[in-house]
Amino acid sequence: MNNKKFNSFIEKLGEPRIPSPIVNGKFEKDTSRILWDISLKERKIKDKEDIISLEIAGPREMIYFDPKKVKAAIVTCGGLCPGINDVIRAIVLTLYYTYGVRNIVGVKYGLQGFIPKYGHEFVELSPDVVSGIHQLGGTVLGTSRGPQNIEEVVDCLEMTNIDMLFIIGGDGTLKAGEEIHQEIKRRDLKISIIGIPKTIDNDIALIARSFGFDTAVEKAAEVLRCAHVEATGAPNGIGLVKVMGRESGFIACNAALAHKDTNVVLIPEVEFDLYGPKGLFRYLKQRILDRSHAVIVVAEGAGQHFFKKRKKERDASGNIKLENIGIYLKEKIEQYFKRIRMPVNIKYFEPSYIIRSIPANSNDSIYCGFLGTNAVHAAMAGKTGMLVGEWNNVYIHLPFSSVVNKRKKVDINGKLWMSVLESTGQPSFKN
Amino acid sequence: MNNKKFNSFIEKLGEPRIPSPIVNGKFEKDTSRILWDISLKERKIKDKEDIISLEIAGPREMIYFDPKKVKAAIVTCGGLCPGINDVIRAIVLTLYYTYGVRNIVGVKYGLQGFIPKYGHEFVELSPDVVSGIHQLGGTVLGTSRGPQNIEEVVDCLEMTNIDMLFIIGGDGTLKAGEEIHQEIKRRDLKISIIGIPKTIDNDIALIARSFGFDTAVEKAAEVLRCAHVEATGAPNGIGLVKVMGRESGFIACNAALAHKDTNVVLIPEVEFDLYGPKGLFRYLKQRILDRSHAVIVVAEGAGQHFFKKRKKERDASGNIKLENIGIYLKEKIEQYFKRIRMPVNIKYFEPSYIIRSIPANSNDSIYCGFLGTNAVHAAMAGKTGMLVGEWNNVYIHLPFSSVVNKRKKVDINGKLWMSVLESTGQPSFKN
Amino acid sequence: MNNKKFNSFIEKLGEPRIPSPIVNGKFEKDTSRILWDISLKERKIKDKEDIISLEIAGPREMIYFDPKKVKAAIVTCGGLCPGINDVIRAIVLTLYYTYGVRNIVGVKYGLQGFIPKYGHEFVELSPDVVSGIHQLGGTVLGTSRGPQNIEEVVDCLEMTNIDMLFIIGGDGTLKAGEEIHQEIKRRDLKISIIGIPKTIDNDIALIARSFGFDTAVEKAAEVLRCAHVEATGAPNGIGLVKVMGRESGFIACNAALAHKDTNVVLIPEVEFDLYGPKGLFRYLKQRILDRSHAVIVVAEGAGQHFFKKRKKERDASGNIKLENIGIYLKEKIEQYFKRIRMPVNIKYFEPSYIIRSIPANSNDSIYCGFLGTNAVHAAMAGKTGMLVGEWNNVYIHLPFSSVVNKRKKVDINGKLWMSVLESTGQPSFKN
Amino acid sequence: MNNKKFNSFIEKLGEPRIPSPIVNGKFEKDTSRILWDISLKERKIKDKEDIISLEIAGPREMIYFDPKKVKAAIVTCGGLCPGINDVIRAIVLTLYYTYGVRNIVGVKYGLQGFIPKYGHEFVELSPDVVSGIHQLGGTVLGTSRGPQNIEEVVDCLEMTNIDMLFIIGGDGTLKAGEEIHQEIKRRDLKISIIGIPKTIDNDIALIARSFGFDTAVEKAAEVLRCAHVEATGAPNGIGLVKVMGRESGFIACNAALAHKDTNVVLIPEVEFDLYGPKGLFRYLKQRILDRSHAVIVVAEGAGQHFFKKRKKERDASGNIKLENIGIYLKEKIEQYFKRIRMPVNIKYFEPSYIIRSIPANSNDSIYCGFLGTNAVHAAMAGKTGMLVGEWNNVYIHLPFSSVVNKRKKVDINGKLWMSVLESTGQPSFKN
Repeated sequence: MNNKKFNSFIEKLGEPRIPSPIVNGKFEKDTSRILWDISLKERKIKDKEDIISLEIAGPREMIYFDPKKVKAAIVTCGGLCPGINDVIRAIVLTLYYTYGVRNIVGVKYGLQGFIPKYGHEFVELSPDVVSGIHQLGGTVLGTSRGPQNIEEVVDCLEMTNIDMLFIIGGDGTLKAGEEIHQEIKRRDLKISIIGIPKTIDNDIALIARSFGFDTAVEKAAEVLRCAHVEATGAPNGIGLVKVMGRESGFIACNAALAHKDTNVVLIPEVEFDLYGPKGLFRYLKQRILDRSHAVIVVAEGAGQHFFKKRKKERDASGNIKLENIGIYLKEKIEQYFKRIRMPVNIKYFEPSYIIRSIPANSNDSIYCGFLGTNAVHAAMAGKTGMLVGEWNNVYIHLPFSSVVNKRKKVDINGKLWMSVLESTGQPSFKN
Repeated sequence: MNNKKFNSFIEKLGEPRIPSPIVNGKFEKDTSRILWDISLKERKIKDKEDIISLEIAGPREMIYFDPKKVKAAIVTCGGLCPGINDVIRAIVLTLYYTYGVRNIVGVKYGLQGFIPKYGHEFVELSPDVVSGIHQLGGTVLGTSRGPQNIEEVVDCLEMTNIDMLFIIGGDGTLKAGEEIHQEIKRRDLKISIIGIPKTIDNDIALIARSFGFDTAVEKAAEVLRCAHVEATGAPNGIGLVKVMGRESGFIACNAALAHKDTNVVLIPEVEFDLYGPKGLFRYLKQRILDRSHAVIVVAEGAGQHFFKKRKKERDASGNIKLENIGIYLKEKIEQYFKRIRMPVNIKYFEPSYIIRSIPANSNDSIYCGFLGTNAVHAAMAGKTGMLVGEWNNVYIHLPFSSVVNKRKKVDINGKLWMSVLESTGQPSFKN
Repeated sequence: MNNKKFNSFIEKLGEPRIPSPIVNGKFEKDTSRILWDISLKERKIKDKEDIISLEIAGPREMIYFDPKKVKAAIVTCGGLCPGINDVIRAIVLTLYYTYGVRNIVGVKYGLQGFIPKYGHEFVELSPDVVSGIHQLGGTVLGTSRGPQNIEEVVDCLEMTNIDMLFIIGGDGTLKAGEEIHQEIKRRDLKISIIGIPKTIDNDIALIARSFGFDTAVEKAAEVLRCAHVEATGAPNGIGLVKVMGRESGFIACNAALAHKDTNVVLIPEVEFDLYGPKGLFRYLKQRILDRSHAVIVVAEGAGQHFFKKRKKERDASGNIKLENIGIYLKEKIEQYFKRIRMPVNIKYFEPSYIIRSIPANSNDSIYCGFLGTNAVHAAMAGKTGMLVGEWNNVYIHLPFSSVVNKRKKVDINGKLWMSVLESTGQPSFKN
Repeated sequence: MNNKKFNSFIEKLGEPRIPSPIVNGKFEKDTSRILWDISLKERKIKDKEDIISLEIAGPREMIYFDPKKVKAAIVTCGGLCPGINDVIRAIVLTLYYTYGVRNIVGVKYGLQGFIPKYGHEFVELSPDVVSGIHQLGGTVLGTSRGPQNIEEVVDCLEMTNIDMLFIIGGDGTLKAGEEIHQEIKRRDLKISIIGIPKTIDNDIALIARSFGFDTAVEKAAEVLRCAHVEATGAPNGIGLVKVMGRESGFIACNAALAHKDTNVVLIPEVEFDLYGPKGLFRYLKQRILDRSHAVIVVAEGAGQHFFKKRKKERDASGNIKLENIGIYLKEKIEQYFKRIRMPVNIKYFEPSYIIRSIPANSNDSIYCGFLGTNAVHAAMAGKTGMLVGEWNNVYIHLPFSSVVNKRKKVDINGKLWMSVLESTGQPSFKN
């Protein structure tokens, strides 16, 4: 962990000189920080800089932009995730009511919305437009995947006189956000760019929890219940569910803890064998003999080592296209039980689209409200090149550079994975 | 319509001579009947036999079986459907509390449960066992597909001294029920066999509504909402949902009426072209140009004419294996838009397993209660070779023979389909 | 039952002379009728008029109003009920898309909206306005209770050039509808008035099922589940739930069939004693001794005989204000068990507002769509003084006069109440 | 804050000398601790004891009790709360599968279950008994309020040879737990007593989040939505909802953030006036004039200063019986608007029982699993007189004495309340 990066204060466009219009507010100082590591240890603290700490989010007493003149834009990128509309709504309402900003636009279909050739027009955003959108799934602005020419994006920001850009998206988007930020600096523009990290997989480094994740777990657990019903309803029934989780198995793990009749959890962090004495299939066979059914949840990024020899493709966002481990497992399971002449009934579920397109539950909805509001406080204070997040229940600021290209993973020696092993009773599937 | 078949009274094992233990009950007579056709017409009624009418279900004043001695069995066959456990529960509770029957068994995994080689044992059923099962999806007895040797089934009934068999299943099961019934008669056994028709597709002839259908429509509409969110969330987004409906499009139609943002409904009853001036794709292209998104729901049995040349396979239940119209459409749509160089984002949903495995909603749960109770009344009265159903809000008896091999279909000149056309605004896709 | 009233054809403003704009439609004739009584009986049919029959709803080939010139209004009256917005939506969309009507207004807050002194303005209604309203509970137009001066209402209709009025409301509203209809005739105006009956209690005579009822039952059953959890969670726990049902116990009965752990159902149709050897309290005491808990559901109109001596008040709609049987029972139960020194834990639930304000479920939503559409077909054909309903799964027309001041009640010798007795095991509570 | 109390290590029955049966586990040491205060400050750390820190929960390498001989008991006390059954289930499964304990009993109806005169018998608990209970609301063990004689409780523990007692309950229960703990020490018994804090109000000091709270907020927000529908559905409609929150307004605040159409939030932490220029009623009047409706949520403990002169009663748990602020407000609002001759339609909701009796949502269910599991780890290690909780996403141990008689309150200068003010736009109601 690079200490300096964390402890460096967040970049600013300039010195805030305008008093905040918030009355009776409790303002945070730029020097308000929380510790990164909260374990009790002997440590010598000569200088605060030695300890990794994070800047606390919240309204500042002095702001940089004049609310009456500022023009704000919001863009949503990447895949759908419960809560995007809640974030949009919170940004608009905070800009409008808390700061009095009247010039707010929405960019259509992700970064495409900045590029003239696509022909998407900006939409005006106001409290009237956004007041009910949190009850809908998806994003009212639309989204798209994939990179766009950064210079064209900044050209558009310049030409349309946008002063602050709120960018809601995942790892690829935040990377683009960093590039836009660098290009803005290169051109010496006074445009703030603030990210709100979005990943249904909950795999952004340094972000304790990403919005939409709680909703996704709840829905995934519902599907596991269906898989359990199907598995127990047929002789030698197997319910196999593929859930989201490209590089991290958080959804699979938590859904299995919520739906407590799950028998096997397969995640990207833990390699597993299919064959051999300790392989998954031998275990599955025994379970079918003992209990007549089994429920398996597999994260989409699990077992990618089975495809090592195949050529890798990339999707529009530049992510490596994963081979479909769900379909692969389904076929291999069928083959295995056919070979050992043990008829099984396998039912395969791929619920990703019905998980990611539902509205946020209460918990996520409240969380999204705080994220959106704090993003606005940061932008109004002239901060830039950063994103808002949560760490140990405190809303914080992080530089883009500290999170891109890093992933949060399930700690296979940690309590989450231990609990999954306890709950499922599954062994290691590694020979 | 064969008048005689309908009007013939339901078969009985013998004359009921035991007074019903129901006190203060309002009993139905075997001569209580309702009209089949309720339209007002000139008709000459010389003799009641001339008019098609149906026997009304309900408790009889005299019963055939001695509740203290009778042994009842319940078996569930075919695919899962919301409400099976509700029916099982109602049968057990009515036998136990209303009639005082104490000897009730459940047959495991469908007709397999009668065949010695599978080694499934009967399970004892009592109020304690079934009191909470209606809150679960699926069937606590398990189910299986496919025919079994009818003689072996009846051998098992004889050997285990079963006096009445309640058989919950779809078209194939009812056909097997009729064969079991004939074999029982051939052997001159006094075993009653009563069917409770199950088809999530709602396609059983003469049955106004099959249990689980209402729940299925509700859930399918939820998935259509997700498809709509996905479609509007991406530039030129298309949400394509395949729902159940092998030969009838009732789920597709009703789900589209419940989720009112559905744009195209494709059902088995209505042929459609993909290409050509009136074909689906031309329409889809225009809609994307106008509105940037589209939501399509297709019943699994729709468009089977596209596969005419391919060889037909059959599944374990003997049903012709349908080609996957959902996958077919997805691929053809992708090809079409690729060819006309109009990039689209298509999201495909196949939610059948998460629809059929949920618990019944209140409406279906209440309905299942009535079906199960009336099935018991019929069996106790010594009726056999029949199933219970509903017609114009009256519970009725129908001979097995009147429903097998017949399908209820969406009337393409009727109000349901007209409403779908109005709601979607879709034209005919036939050149 | 007055035969003539039923068989008289529905009143019309004049002869329809304009061809319907519906192309390829399947039109109904005014002579299409269904039988009222569908039981098979010997009957002599000399003349169709002798048999009670009902006019079938649906589009007519010739219409009375010119869609380009017609002005339509919608008003919603009385208490909230799931599905009102679905009906509004269906009326607007059918007027707009099926007939091409462009001049549609919504009247605010019930009949108040016609009366100048309240100062409510009409709102314009169009597909844009109503497209998403079915996802909300309540009514977007607002509603109010109580009668208004009929002449002022008709004055307003005249002055604002309204040609057709759709009135959504319960018994009191339909009575007002009949009076408005008579006043319109007296003035010889060509204004069609069409009712869509609304009663969450499902107690309108001749209407098999009222919209919102299915949703209400589902939600009420949910509350019964909570009552059961509370009752079993405490020593000698009693869960007491008051549900809607002023004069009919349909919600109480059906909710008890859906939540199968209900032990006592009290409805207006069945008198009961509290004390004495057969009274409710003796039974309750025995149940607590045997099972340690009890769940009771009481319809709001049940047990009004306990209040006979008290003076009756009336609410704004002119309904007699019922005494609160829920609170009364709660207090009497507490007193009784205190007296016999048997401590009980009673939890009282009054969920009416959370039941009636939720959005319609799929089933009701689809049903509301058909009601709204058929109401428009009737109005466009120049019919008036009538309401749309359903009878034996056919949408029909009924004159206002045939339903007002009549109530549908639970038949205490019928299958619904018998099933409730079977499900709860409760005896008669009448000494 | 008493530093010593926090930093004192948790009490133990003796030195753990038995190796844990957990294989491959990651064990926590008793010296693993986290910081209480995570803000970055200058601090001199001479000695770890100077900094407030908390002991981390988790499995220990050496345990105190022999799993084969130990007898465990579980008791649930106080009001219902979503998730109790999840905690019971996790305790039983962890005892059984992780440690191999076979002797587990459930105590019926709270502390009553220990007292002979009530005649409640213990129930055997095993995985079979608890496997499905998390899907039910309430507690399968039953609960009761109020203190019992502590000596009798410990007599019972002694006589029935219980070695460890898991006690799930709120403030009063934890107080009783501390007394039981002291009595156990006085008698020099080797009985471990471990608390799992339960409070739907989320108001336990030092516990970041209590189980069931997230579920309660979700359900309360649903009721606020109903209140909003009722309020907007009537002219000058007011929806008034009383939610739980005896001393802290967490549910009211969070529900208002989740249901974003709430207009006024009243909590115990913030005094308010009804009359006068800044009073609630003046504000309400203006809002009705401007917007025609209002939604108010009031925590049950708010506004108790209005009842100061009345005599205080206490409930069975010894809590001061609160005057019903909901009913009080409803009446005063009616009076006020009657006096100023502005007719309003007020709808009052009291949903506490339907909130607290539902099953835990996924989030709470997972959380309960961790709490139950960590409680078992602590008991097996011989710890006692403590409860398990969570602080900054780490599961921790706290002595009973550190939490009883202390309340967590909404910080009226903190972000939660600031957000509520922003979301509702409400001013101070203090003259």
